[in-house]
Amino acid sequence: MAPLISLPASAKPVNDVPLRYGAIVYPGFQALDLFGPLDALNTLSLSYPLSLSVLAESLEPVSTKPPGTLGNQEADFGQTIVPTHTFADAPPIDVLIVPGGFGVRIPENVAAAIAYIAKVYPTLRYVVTVCTGSILVAQAGVLDGRAATTNKRSFVNMTALRSQVNWVPHARWVVDGNIWSSSGVSAGLDIIFAFMSEMYGEEVADTISDILEYERHKDAAWDPYAEKYGL
Amino acid sequence: MAPLISLPASAKPVNDVPLRYGAIVYPGFQALDLFGPLDALNTLSLSYPLSLSVLAESLEPVSTKPPGTLGNQEADFGQTIVPTHTFADAPPIDVLIVPGGFGVRIPENVAAAIAYIAKVYPTLRYVVTVCTGSILVAQAGVLDGRAATTNKRSFVNMTALRSQVNWVPHARWVVDGNIWSSSGVSAGLDIIFAFMSEMYGEEVADTISDILEYERHKDAAWDPYAEKYGL
Repeated sequence: MAPLISLPASAKPVNDVPLRYGAIVYPGFQALDLFGPLDALNTLSLSYPLSLSVLAESLEPVSTKPPGTLGNQEADFGQTIVPTHTFADAPPIDVLIVPGGFGVRIPENVAAAIAYIAKVYPTLRYVVTVCTGSILVAQAGVLDGRAATTNKRSFVNMTALRSQVNWVPHARWVVDGNIWSSSGVSAGLDIIFAFMSEMYGEEVADTISDILEYERHKDAAWDPYAEKYGL
Repeated sequence: MAPLISLPASAKPVNDVPLRYGAIVYPGFQALDLFGPLDALNTLSLSYPLSLSVLAESLEPVSTKPPGTLGNQEADFGQTIVPTHTFADAPPIDVLIVPGGFGVRIPENVAAAIAYIAKVYPTLRYVVTVCTGSILVAQAGVLDGRAATTNKRSFVNMTALRSQVNWVPHARWVVDGNIWSSSGVSAGLDIIFAFMSEMYGEEVADTISDILEYERHKDAAWDPYAEKYGL
Protein backbone atom coordinates (compact mmCIF):
# COMPACT_ATOMS: atom_id res chain seq x y z
CA MET A 1 0.00 0.00 0.00
CA ALA A 2 1.33 3.48 -0.84
CA PRO A 3 2.41 5.51 2.20
CA LEU A 4 -0.05 8.15 3.38
CA ILE A 5 2.60 10.87 3.19
CA SER A 6 5.96 11.27 1.47
CA LEU A 7 8.84 13.19 2.99
CA PRO A 8 11.34 15.32 1.04
CA ALA A 9 14.67 13.77 0.00
CA SER A 10 16.42 15.97 2.59
CA ALA A 11 14.80 14.02 5.47
CA LYS A 12 17.50 12.67 7.77
CA PRO A 13 18.10 8.91 7.68
CA VAL A 14 16.38 6.76 10.26
CA ASN A 15 19.59 5.76 12.03
CA ASP A 16 20.40 9.41 12.83
CA VAL A 17 17.17 10.47 14.50
CA PRO A 18 15.38 9.97 17.84
CA LEU A 19 12.75 7.26 17.52
CA ARG A 20 11.50 6.39 21.01
CA TYR A 21 9.16 8.95 22.54
CA GLY A 22 7.51 9.10 25.94
CA ALA A 23 4.79 11.50 27.12
CA ILE A 24 3.80 12.10 30.73
CA VAL A 25 0.15 12.47 31.74
CA TYR A 26 -1.46 13.26 35.11
CA PRO A 27 -4.97 14.39 36.14
CA GLY A 28 -5.63 17.91 34.89
CA PHE A 29 -3.04 17.96 32.10
CA GLN A 30 -3.88 20.51 29.38
CA ALA A 31 -5.12 18.63 26.30
CA LEU A 32 -3.54 20.82 23.62
CA ASP A 33 -0.19 20.87 25.47
CA LEU A 34 -0.03 17.16 24.82
CA PHE A 35 -1.90 16.65 21.57
CA GLY A 36 -0.32 19.54 19.65
CA PRO A 37 3.16 17.98 19.75
CA LEU A 38 1.85 14.42 19.61
CA ASP A 39 -0.26 15.02 16.53
CA ALA A 40 2.73 16.47 14.69
CA LEU A 41 4.61 13.31 15.71
CA ASN A 42 1.65 11.07 14.83
CA THR A 43 1.99 12.42 11.31
CA LEU A 44 5.79 12.09 11.30
CA SER A 45 5.37 8.45 12.38
CA LEU A 46 3.78 7.69 9.01
CA SER A 47 7.32 8.02 7.59
CA TYR A 48 9.64 7.14 10.51
CA PRO A 49 9.34 4.04 12.75
CA LEU A 50 8.58 6.08 15.86
CA SER A 51 7.21 4.63 19.07
CA LEU A 52 5.28 6.37 21.84
CA SER A 53 4.80 5.40 25.47
CA VAL A 54 2.11 7.30 27.36
CA LEU A 55 3.32 7.30 30.96
CA ALA A 56 1.35 7.80 34.17
CA GLU A 57 1.38 6.85 37.82
CA SER A 58 -0.97 3.91 37.11
CA LEU A 59 -2.65 2.41 34.04
CA GLU A 60 -6.00 3.98 34.97
CA PRO A 61 -7.26 6.35 32.25
CA VAL A 62 -6.28 9.97 32.97
CA SER A 63 -8.65 12.94 32.58
CA THR A 64 -7.91 16.47 31.46
CA LYS A 65 -10.36 17.74 34.10
CA PRO A 66 -8.74 19.86 36.82
CA PRO A 67 -8.59 17.48 39.80
CA GLY A 68 -10.49 17.85 43.06
CA THR A 69 -12.26 21.16 43.51
CA LEU A 70 -9.85 23.09 41.29
CA GLY A 71 -12.16 23.30 38.27
CA ASN A 72 -15.73 24.42 37.66
CA GLN A 73 -17.85 22.00 39.66
CA GLU A 74 -20.89 22.84 37.52
CA ALA A 75 -19.21 21.66 34.33
CA ASP A 76 -18.66 18.10 33.12
CA PHE A 77 -16.22 18.62 30.31
CA GLY A 78 -13.01 16.69 29.76
CA GLN A 79 -11.31 13.92 27.83
CA THR A 80 -9.72 10.76 29.17
CA ILE A 81 -6.58 9.18 27.73
CA VAL A 82 -5.27 5.65 28.33
CA PRO A 83 -1.65 5.29 29.53
CA THR A 84 0.47 2.54 27.97
CA HIS A 85 2.94 2.22 30.87
CA THR A 86 3.35 3.26 34.47
CA PHE A 87 6.34 5.35 35.52
CA ALA A 88 7.64 2.22 37.26
CA ASP A 89 7.45 0.12 34.06
CA ALA A 90 8.44 2.73 31.46
CA PRO A 91 10.57 1.37 28.61
CA PRO A 92 13.75 3.20 27.49
CA ILE A 93 12.96 6.41 25.65
CA ASP A 94 14.91 9.02 23.71
CA VAL A 95 12.62 12.04 24.02
CA LEU A 96 10.35 12.84 26.96
CA ILE A 97 7.41 15.19 26.37
CA VAL A 98 6.02 16.93 29.46
CA PRO A 99 2.71 18.83 29.13
CA GLY A 100 1.46 21.40 31.63
CA GLY A 101 -2.01 22.04 32.98
CA PHE A 102 -3.90 23.08 36.08
CA GLY A 103 -3.04 19.71 37.66
CA VAL A 104 0.51 21.00 38.20
CA ARG A 105 -0.83 23.22 41.01
CA ILE A 106 -1.53 20.29 43.34
CA PRO A 107 1.77 18.84 44.61
CA GLU A 108 0.51 15.35 45.42
CA ASN A 109 -1.10 15.16 41.96
CA VAL A 110 2.27 15.44 40.20
CA ALA A 111 4.74 14.05 42.78
CA ALA A 112 5.10 10.74 40.93
CA ALA A 113 5.69 12.52 37.61
CA ILE A 114 8.38 14.73 39.15
CA ALA A 115 10.10 11.73 40.74
CA TYR A 116 10.06 9.91 37.40
CA ILE A 117 11.58 12.90 35.57
CA ALA A 118 14.37 13.12 38.17
CA LYS A 119 15.09 9.41 37.80
CA VAL A 120 14.90 9.08 34.01
CA TYR A 121 16.54 12.36 32.98
CA PRO A 122 20.14 11.01 32.90
CA THR A 123 19.05 8.34 30.38
CA LEU A 124 17.22 10.71 27.99
CA ARG A 125 18.51 12.34 24.83
CA TYR A 126 16.02 15.22 24.99
CA VAL A 127 13.19 16.69 27.04
CA VAL A 128 10.46 18.81 25.42
CA THR A 129 8.13 20.73 27.75
CA VAL A 130 4.96 22.65 26.96
CA CYS A 131 3.42 25.32 29.18
CA THR A 132 3.78 24.54 32.89
CA GLY A 133 5.33 21.17 32.04
CA SER A 134 8.64 22.97 32.55
CA ILE A 135 7.65 23.55 36.18
CA LEU A 136 7.60 19.77 36.72
CA VAL A 137 11.01 19.40 35.08
CA ALA A 138 12.28 22.28 37.22
CA GLN A 139 10.91 20.67 40.37
CA ALA A 140 12.80 17.51 39.41
CA GLY A 141 15.93 19.63 39.87
CA VAL A 142 17.33 19.17 36.36
CA LEU A 143 16.80 22.78 35.19
CA ASP A 144 18.75 24.50 37.97
CA GLY A 145 21.14 27.08 36.50
CA ARG A 146 19.69 26.59 33.03
CA ALA A 147 17.40 28.77 30.91
CA ALA A 148 13.77 27.79 30.36
CA THR A 149 10.35 29.30 29.76
CA THR A 150 6.78 28.41 30.70
CA ASN A 151 3.15 29.59 30.48
CA LYS A 152 2.95 33.40 30.45
CA ARG A 153 -0.34 33.90 32.29
CA SER A 154 0.95 31.77 35.20
CA PHE A 155 4.59 32.84 34.89
CA VAL A 156 5.07 34.72 38.17
CA ASN A 157 3.31 32.22 40.43
CA MET A 158 4.68 29.12 38.77
CA THR A 159 8.33 30.10 38.38
CA ALA A 160 8.45 30.93 42.10
CA LEU A 161 8.23 27.17 42.71
CA ARG A 162 11.85 26.80 41.51
CA SER A 163 13.79 30.04 41.52
CA GLN A 164 17.12 28.30 40.78
CA VAL A 165 16.12 28.19 37.09
CA ASN A 166 16.93 31.12 34.76
CA TRP A 167 13.32 31.68 33.77
CA VAL A 168 12.94 33.58 30.48
CA PRO A 169 9.75 35.70 30.46
CA HIS A 170 9.82 36.72 26.81
CA ALA A 171 10.19 33.67 24.52
CA ARG A 172 8.02 31.33 22.48
CA TRP A 173 10.52 28.63 23.34
CA VAL A 174 13.99 28.22 24.84
CA VAL A 175 16.64 25.55 24.26
CA ASP A 176 19.33 24.99 26.91
CA GLY A 177 21.39 21.86 26.47
CA ASN A 178 19.03 18.97 25.85
CA ILE A 179 16.00 20.62 27.44
CA TRP A 180 13.55 22.35 25.10
CA SER A 181 10.88 24.37 26.92
CA SER A 182 8.00 26.28 25.38
CA SER A 183 5.49 28.91 26.43
CA GLY A 184 1.79 28.20 27.02
CA VAL A 185 -0.42 25.60 25.34
CA SER A 186 -0.30 26.24 21.57
CA ALA A 187 3.43 27.05 21.82
CA GLY A 188 3.82 23.28 21.97
CA LEU A 189 3.14 23.19 18.24
CA ASP A 190 5.89 25.69 17.49
CA ILE A 191 8.46 23.96 19.69
CA ILE A 192 7.77 20.51 18.28
CA PHE A 193 8.22 21.81 14.74
CA ALA A 194 11.46 23.56 15.76
CA PHE A 195 12.59 20.29 17.34
CA MET A 196 11.52 18.32 14.25
CA SER A 197 13.43 20.74 12.03
CA GLU A 198 16.60 20.27 14.07
CA MET A 199 16.31 16.48 14.35
CA TYR A 200 14.70 15.35 11.07
CA GLY A 201 15.27 18.34 8.75
CA GLU A 202 13.73 21.72 8.06
CA GLU A 203 11.84 20.53 4.99
CA VAL A 204 10.39 17.67 7.03
CA ALA A 205 9.04 20.12 9.62
CA ASP A 206 7.57 22.28 6.84
CA THR A 207 5.97 19.27 5.16
CA ILE A 208 4.32 18.10 8.38
CA SER A 209 3.17 21.58 9.42
CA ASP A 210 1.64 22.05 5.96
CA ILE A 211 -0.23 18.75 6.33
CA LEU A 212 -1.53 20.03 9.67
CA GLU A 213 -2.34 23.34 7.90
CA TYR A 214 -0.50 25.05 10.73
CA GLU A 215 1.32 28.32 10.08
CA ARG A 216 4.11 27.89 12.58
CA HIS A 217 6.11 30.58 14.31
CA LYS A 218 9.75 29.98 13.41
CA ASP A 219 11.13 32.76 15.61
CA ALA A 220 11.75 31.57 19.18
CA ALA A 221 11.63 35.22 20.31
CA TRP A 222 8.07 35.78 19.02
CA ASP A 223 5.95 36.25 22.12
CA PRO A 224 3.09 38.78 22.28
CA TYR A 225 1.76 36.98 25.37
CA ALA A 226 4.64 38.12 27.60
CA GLU A 227 3.39 41.70 27.25
CA LYS A 228 -0.28 40.72 27.35
CA TYR A 229 0.27 39.18 30.76
CA GLY A 230 2.44 42.02 32.04
CA LEU A 231 5.90 40.39 31.91
CA MET B 1 -12.14 28.63 45.75
CA ALA B 2 -11.45 31.40 43.20
CA PRO B 3 -12.22 30.43 39.60
CA LEU B 4 -9.19 29.51 37.46
CA ILE B 5 -10.15 32.07 34.83
CA SER B 6 -12.42 35.12 34.67
CA LEU B 7 -14.39 36.09 31.59
CA PRO B 8 -15.06 39.67 30.46
CA ALA B 9 -18.35 41.31 31.43
CA SER B 10 -19.50 41.06 27.79
CA ALA B 11 -19.70 37.25 28.04
CA LYS B 12 -23.21 36.12 27.08
CA PRO B 13 -25.41 34.82 29.89
CA VAL B 14 -25.58 31.10 30.49
CA ASN B 15 -29.22 30.77 29.44
CA ASP B 16 -28.44 32.11 25.95
CA VAL B 17 -25.60 29.79 24.97
CA PRO B 18 -25.14 26.16 23.85
CA LEU B 19 -24.04 24.02 26.80
CA ARG B 20 -24.24 20.36 25.77
CA TYR B 21 -21.45 19.22 23.46
CA GLY B 22 -20.81 15.89 21.79
CA ALA B 23 -17.71 14.77 19.92
CA ILE B 24 -17.47 11.79 17.60
CA VAL B 25 -14.44 9.48 17.63
CA TYR B 26 -13.53 6.47 15.45
CA PRO B 27 -10.27 4.57 14.86
CA GLY B 28 -7.79 6.75 13.02
CA PHE B 29 -9.27 10.13 13.95
CA GLN B 30 -6.73 12.97 13.77
CA ALA B 31 -5.76 13.97 17.31
CA LEU B 32 -5.44 17.72 16.77
CA ASP B 33 -8.74 17.84 14.83
CA LEU B 34 -10.42 16.81 18.05
CA PHE B 35 -8.25 18.26 20.80
CA GLY B 36 -7.79 21.71 19.28
CA PRO B 37 -11.50 22.56 19.56
CA LEU B 38 -11.99 20.53 22.73
CA ASP B 39 -9.14 22.21 24.59
CA ALA B 40 -10.57 25.63 23.78
CA LEU B 41 -13.88 24.34 25.16
CA ASN B 42 -12.16 22.69 28.15
CA THR B 43 -10.96 26.17 29.06
CA LEU B 44 -14.35 27.76 28.38
CA SER B 45 -15.93 25.15 30.67
CA LEU B 46 -14.09 26.72 33.61
CA SER B 47 -16.61 29.57 33.30
CA TYR B 48 -19.71 27.99 31.73
CA PRO B 49 -21.44 24.77 32.91
CA LEU B 50 -20.61 22.89 29.72
CA SER B 51 -20.90 19.13 29.31
CA LEU B 52 -19.15 16.87 26.84
CA SER B 53 -20.09 13.41 25.60
CA VAL B 54 -17.39 11.53 23.70
CA LEU B 55 -19.31 9.30 21.31
CA ALA B 56 -18.19 6.12 19.55
CA GLU B 57 -19.55 2.89 18.16
CA SER B 58 -18.72 1.10 21.43
CA LEU B 59 -17.22 2.06 24.79
CA GLU B 60 -13.86 0.49 23.86
CA PRO B 61 -11.03 3.04 23.91
CA VAL B 62 -10.39 4.50 20.45
CA SER B 63 -6.92 5.01 18.96
CA THR B 64 -5.64 7.75 16.68
CA LYS B 65 -3.62 5.14 14.77
CA PRO B 66 -4.72 4.69 11.16
CA PRO B 67 -6.66 1.41 11.24
CA GLY B 68 -5.69 -1.84 9.52
CA THR B 69 -2.76 -1.57 7.13
CA LEU B 70 -3.38 2.10 6.33
CA GLY B 71 -0.58 3.49 8.49
CA ASN B 72 3.14 2.80 8.85
CA GLN B 73 3.35 -0.77 10.09
CA GLU B 74 6.87 -0.14 11.43
CA ALA B 75 5.67 2.61 13.78
CA ASP B 76 3.87 2.23 17.10
CA PHE B 77 2.71 5.77 17.73
CA GLY B 78 -0.78 6.82 18.77
CA GLN B 79 -3.01 7.91 21.61
CA THR B 80 -6.14 6.23 22.89
CA ILE B 81 -9.20 8.10 24.18
CA VAL B 82 -12.07 6.71 26.24
CA PRO B 83 -15.64 7.25 24.93
CA THR B 84 -18.31 8.23 27.44
CA HIS B 85 -21.29 6.99 25.40
CA THR B 86 -22.06 4.83 22.40
CA PHE B 87 -23.91 6.30 19.43
CA ALA B 88 -26.89 4.18 20.53
CA ASP B 89 -26.89 5.67 24.05
CA ALA B 90 -25.90 9.27 23.30
CA PRO B 91 -27.65 11.88 25.47
CA PRO B 92 -29.25 14.99 23.93
CA ILE B 93 -26.63 17.45 22.69
CA ASP B 94 -26.63 20.97 21.30
CA VAL B 95 -23.36 21.01 19.35
CA LEU B 96 -21.78 18.02 17.59
CA ILE B 97 -18.05 18.16 16.83
CA VAL B 98 -16.84 15.87 14.04
CA PRO B 99 -13.06 15.44 13.57
CA GLY B 100 -11.43 14.05 10.44
CA GLY B 101 -8.52 11.68 10.02
CA PHE B 102 -7.19 8.87 7.88
CA GLY B 103 -9.86 6.57 9.37
CA VAL B 104 -12.43 8.35 7.18
CA ARG B 105 -10.97 6.51 4.17
CA ILE B 106 -12.28 3.10 5.26
CA PRO B 107 -16.08 3.01 4.82
CA GLU B 108 -16.80 0.28 7.38
CA ASN B 109 -14.67 2.15 9.93
CA VAL B 110 -16.98 5.17 9.89
CA ALA B 111 -20.35 3.71 8.86
CA ALA B 112 -21.72 3.88 12.41
CA ALA B 113 -20.59 7.49 12.81
CA ILE B 114 -22.25 8.49 9.53
CA ALA B 115 -25.48 6.74 10.51
CA TYR B 116 -25.46 8.52 13.88
CA ILE B 117 -24.93 11.93 12.24
CA ALA B 118 -27.86 11.30 9.87
CA LYS B 119 -30.09 10.29 12.78
CA VAL B 120 -29.13 13.00 15.28
CA TYR B 121 -28.79 15.98 12.93
CA PRO B 122 -32.45 17.11 13.13
CA THR B 123 -32.11 17.41 16.94
CA LEU B 124 -28.87 19.45 16.95
CA ARG B 125 -28.46 23.19 17.19
CA TYR B 126 -25.04 23.19 15.47
CA VAL B 127 -22.46 20.93 13.85
CA VAL B 128 -18.76 21.86 13.81
CA THR B 129 -16.47 19.83 11.55
CA VAL B 130 -12.70 19.80 11.31
CA CYS B 131 -10.69 18.56 8.33
CA THR B 132 -12.28 15.49 6.70
CA GLY B 133 -14.93 15.40 9.42
CA SER B 134 -17.07 17.29 6.90
CA ILE B 135 -16.86 14.28 4.60
CA LEU B 136 -18.68 12.19 7.23
CA VAL B 137 -21.36 14.87 7.62
CA ALA B 138 -21.65 15.04 3.83
CA GLN B 139 -22.00 11.27 3.59
CA ALA B 140 -24.81 11.51 6.14
CA GLY B 141 -26.64 13.52 3.46
CA VAL B 142 -27.17 16.67 5.49
CA LEU B 143 -24.78 18.90 3.49
CA ASP B 144 -26.34 18.38 0.06
CA GLY B 145 -26.82 21.73 -1.68
CA ARG B 146 -24.96 23.55 1.09
CA ALA B 147 -21.47 25.09 1.17
CA ALA B 148 -18.69 23.43 3.16
CA THR B 149 -14.94 22.99 3.18
CA THR B 150 -12.52 20.24 4.21
CA ASN B 151 -8.83 19.27 4.33
CA LYS B 152 -6.92 20.85 1.44
CA ARG B 153 -4.32 18.14 0.80
CA SER B 154 -7.12 15.55 0.44
CA PHE B 155 -9.67 17.91 -1.10
CA VAL B 156 -10.03 16.41 -4.58
CA ASN B 157 -10.22 12.76 -3.51
CA MET B 158 -12.41 13.33 -0.49
CA THR B 159 -14.98 15.74 -1.92
CA ALA B 160 -15.61 13.25 -4.76
CA LEU B 161 -17.30 11.05 -2.15
CA ARG B 162 -20.25 13.48 -2.05
CA SER B 163 -20.43 15.76 -5.05
CA GLN B 164 -23.88 17.11 -4.10
CA VAL B 165 -22.17 19.48 -1.63
CA ASN B 166 -20.95 22.92 -2.76
CA TRP B 167 -17.37 22.27 -1.72
CA VAL B 168 -15.35 25.47 -1.20
CA PRO B 169 -11.67 24.95 -2.02
CA HIS B 170 -10.35 28.26 -0.71
CA ALA B 171 -11.50 28.88 2.89
CA ARG B 172 -10.21 28.46 6.44
CA TRP B 173 -13.79 27.76 7.41
CA VAL B 174 -17.32 28.00 5.98
CA VAL B 175 -20.66 28.51 7.73
CA ASP B 176 -23.86 27.45 5.97
CA GLY B 177 -26.96 27.37 8.12
CA ASN B 178 -26.11 25.53 11.31
CA ILE B 179 -23.15 23.60 9.88
CA TRP B 180 -19.70 25.07 10.51
CA SER B 181 -16.94 23.29 8.53
CA SER B 182 -13.22 24.00 8.66
CA SER B 183 -10.16 23.19 6.63
CA GLY B 184 -7.45 20.73 7.74
CA VAL B 185 -6.34 19.89 11.30
CA SER B 186 -5.22 23.15 12.96
CA ALA B 187 -8.08 25.02 11.26
CA GLY B 188 -10.18 23.43 14.00
CA LEU B 189 -8.71 25.98 16.40
CA ASP B 190 -9.75 28.90 14.21
CA ILE B 191 -13.27 27.63 13.64
CA ILE B 192 -13.91 26.91 17.31
CA PHE B 193 -12.83 30.42 18.25
CA ALA B 194 -15.04 31.87 15.50
CA PHE B 195 -17.89 29.74 16.84
CA MET B 196 -17.11 30.79 20.42
CA SER B 197 -17.09 34.44 19.36
CA GLU B 198 -20.52 34.10 17.76
CA MET B 199 -22.07 32.10 20.61
CA TYR B 200 -20.41 33.43 23.79
CA GLY B 201 -18.96 36.79 22.66
CA GLU B 202 -15.92 38.10 20.82
CA GLU B 203 -14.09 39.08 23.99
CA VAL B 204 -14.67 35.60 25.39
CA ALA B 205 -13.03 34.04 22.33
CA ASP B 206 -10.11 36.46 22.62
CA THR B 207 -9.71 35.73 26.33
CA ILE B 208 -9.63 31.96 25.78
CA SER B 209 -7.30 32.14 22.75
CA ASP B 210 -4.92 34.33 24.78
CA ILE B 211 -4.93 31.75 27.59
CA LEU B 212 -4.06 29.12 24.98
CA GLU B 213 -1.41 31.57 23.64
CA TYR B 214 -2.90 30.96 20.22
CA GLU B 215 -2.80 33.70 17.59
CA ARG B 216 -6.00 32.85 15.82
CA HIS B 217 -6.90 33.59 12.22
CA LYS B 218 -10.06 35.70 12.29
CA ASP B 219 -10.52 35.83 8.52
CA ALA B 220 -12.47 32.84 7.23
CA ALA B 221 -10.98 33.47 3.76
CA TRP B 222 -7.35 33.09 4.96
CA ASP B 223 -6.10 29.91 3.32
CA PRO B 224 -2.56 29.59 1.97
CA TYR B 225 -3.00 25.79 1.89
CA ALA B 226 -5.48 25.87 -0.99
CA GLU B 227 -2.68 27.13 -3.24
CA LYS B 228 -0.03 24.94 -1.65
CA TYR B 229 -2.04 21.89 -2.56
CA GLY B 230 -2.93 23.13 -6.05
CA LEU B 231 -6.59 24.10 -5.56
